[in-house]
Amino acid sequence: MTMRTRTQVGIIGAGPAGLLLQHLLARAGVDSVLVENRSREYCEKRQRAGVLEHGTVELLKEIGLGARMEREGLLHSGIYLQFAGERHHIDFPSLTGGRTLTVYAQTEVVKDAIAVGHPIHFEVSDTAVRDIDTDRPILSFTDRDGVAHEIECDVIAGCDGFHGVSRPAMSGLRVSERTYPFAWLGILASVPPSTDELIYAHSPQGFAMHSMRSPEVSRLYIQVDPDEKIENWSDDRIWEQLQVRLGHPGWTLTEGPITEKGITPMRSFVAEPMRQGRLFLAGDAAHIVPPTGAKGLNLAVADVKVLADALVRLLVEGKSDLADAYSDTCLTRVWRSTWFSWFMTSMLHTFPVSTFGSPAEAEFQERLQIAQLRQVTSSTAAATNLAENYAGWPLP
Amino acid sequence: MTMRTRTQVGIIGAGPAGLLLQHLLARAGVDSVLVENRSREYCEKRQRAGVLEHGTVELLKEIGLGARMEREGLLHSGIYLQFAGERHHIDFPSLTGGRTLTVYAQTEVVKDAIAVGHPIHFEVSDTAVRDIDTDRPILSFTDRDGVAHEIECDVIAGCDGFHGVSRPAMSGLRVSERTYPFAWLGILASVPPSTDELIYAHSPQGFAMHSMRSPEVSRLYIQVDPDEKIENWSDDRIWEQLQVRLGHPGWTLTEGPITEKGITPMRSFVAEPMRQGRLFLAGDAAHIVPPTGAKGLNLAVADVKVLADALVRLLVEGKSDLADAYSDTCLTRVWRSTWFSWFMTSMLHTFPVSTFGSPAEAEFQERLQIAQLRQVTSSTAAATNLAENYAGWPLP
Repeated sequence: MTMRTRTQVGIIGAGPAGLLLQHLLARAGVDSVLVENRSREYCEKRQRAGVLEHGTVELLKEIGLGARMEREGLLHSGIYLQFAGERHHIDFPSLTGGRTLTVYAQTEVVKDAIAVGHPIHFEVSDTAVRDIDTDRPILSFTDRDGVAHEIECDVIAGCDGFHGVSRPAMSGLRVSERTYPFAWLGILASVPPSTDELIYAHSPQGFAMHSMRSPEVSRLYIQVDPDEKIENWSDDRIWEQLQVRLGHPGWTLTEGPITEKGITPMRSFVAEPMRQGRLFLAGDAAHIVPPTGAKGLNLAVADVKVLADALVRLLVEGKSDLADAYSDTCLTRVWRSTWFSWFMTSMLHTFPVSTFGSPAEAEFQERLQIAQLRQVTSSTAAATNLAENYAGWPLP
Repeated sequence: MTMRTRTQVGIIGAGPAGLLLQHLLARAGVDSVLVENRSREYCEKRQRAGVLEHGTVELLKEIGLGARMEREGLLHSGIYLQFAGERHHIDFPSLTGGRTLTVYAQTEVVKDAIAVGHPIHFEVSDTAVRDIDTDRPILSFTDRDGVAHEIECDVIAGCDGFHGVSRPAMSGLRVSERTYPFAWLGILASVPPSTDELIYAHSPQGFAMHSMRSPEVSRLYIQVDPDEKIENWSDDRIWEQLQVRLGHPGWTLTEGPITEKGITPMRSFVAEPMRQGRLFLAGDAAHIVPPTGAKGLNLAVADVKVLADALVRLLVEGKSDLADAYSDTCLTRVWRSTWFSWFMTSMLHTFPVSTFGSPAEAEFQERLQIAQLRQVTSSTAAATNLAENYAGWPLP
């Protein structure tokens, strides 16, 4: 037996994109149903990004999701770039006319959004979309009690990430992709951060980064081979590499218990257009950036802001102009962020010698990176370009 | 029988680097002998670069080599960047506090410098250097009359280009290199330029560029395969590709007789340090940049300005500090220019699909280039960074 219901917007995925979209729509009187194949507990715990652009912060405050973030978020005014024995601070407010960043974990944004109480089906299975080229697309799934559902929607929003079912339901997509020859091994450690701002470190042993989640929790990363296994990395080995790569005279990296560790591949990916008929993609479902530069979450937020405006216009005012422009509107920012994430990634990571045809070609890449780093730390124009891209552009 | 003579500075190579070095030294009372294996006629005719930075122009004027350049050089205030059907002007003076460029062919700079009349042996052979780790290095060669020479020098300056004998005489060099998967087919055409400023065009058919040598002579380039043969390119085929790649609504490319054509490979190359003992390298002998961005000639001029100051200090004042700093002083600018030339080259050329592992990876590269081009044509910070690099930095 199949339960047949109706909603205006069927949303797939309870990550930040889907949850914020649901909330934005609800505020405008548009009803939605959100389905998620993981448990609520899982969604509220999974570690992802943690750096919010000024525009993201402003939006969360504006829509009533900013109270805890304002209390617990850490205000940052730039980043450190470290290379060739030097550590430079890039001061965002002075370069961008006052823009800052807020460190507040994605997982907390997710918790805050779930807590609002909009209708969400967790732990669903068999999620599928069909009839997306009609005015009544169908979102189907089996709920956690084994009941089959079919929701007749005006629109379906695919916020289900890179491995979701939404993008494969579309046809004729133009796909752009780059796979990088390295991955990030990330840890959470129960130790106060050893730095006031994020440190991005280029080193001969590979990239390393010192980030944080709260005044008590540090988040650190080291570049590893893309096929590296986490079992090969004892806590001691991880800290040893962090010490070597982040080490700087007069500065101490304080170690602490590692509470979580995992390896993330690095990929750039864009599928275009971001819409087919009544199916709209947002966030990782349409595009992936490598984490260097902290663009992924902020890009997803920008997508759903554009999408919410477009769907309200379509479903409340009956005008399709913003919906028709959705993909192009988003892709301008997507490619800007894709470029920036590629730029930061290419500048900071060590490329394996096997990537090149000769040792001299590998040497060239490393020297080029140092030249690029010198430029962004010595030229105001280059530093401003980095800061403007990192701090982010106003939301549409 | 060998003629044995003495000079303070033995200079190898009558390109702009060697000729300007000789002139700078002469003005400070340091004597030199310059040897060149080509004929004077060849040196005065070979087509190379043609865009002089503000600093290069100022130096040439200051040392009395600017009169004809001031009469015949063409003042430029920027470049056009063309891509995706758009043509944008990057205005250098407004972005860099007034810096401009002068289009004046390298071959004219060479003529002006040779005309001064410093001692030059053209058409030499068997050029060699030895004893560079002593205080009396020897420059040996056979002159055009078959007479063998050995010149005992205080210092030898290797200004003999990428294929010269100087660099191979050094040991333990750190070499950085990148070979690009394309070359430039360049032509000289007897037709007034169809543009007031240089046009750099990204197109699906490959890069193209419209430059000029004088109000009557156009210089144009198209990207071709690195192993392309010039015999495969009839004049008609060249103009056809120029029309396709440079074409822009409301603009006409005027064709004319092609008087010269040739293919140049694209390479980035840096050998460090630029000095061993009493042998100093300058210009292409130490580093090669791809022509995109017009840095090669200007970098050679910067090298010899630093070198002349260092040698005057060493040979007149007896102090080695500037000579000891020579390599490091030059390499800061070398790597800045190497980065910039790589940046312009990578942004503007079409990379063959065979360079990538998949069509999606090739697509990514192209979209990345467009994103980069949009950035430098829409962000003041990014445009300023490009303009500052292109217009060049003050000479040391």
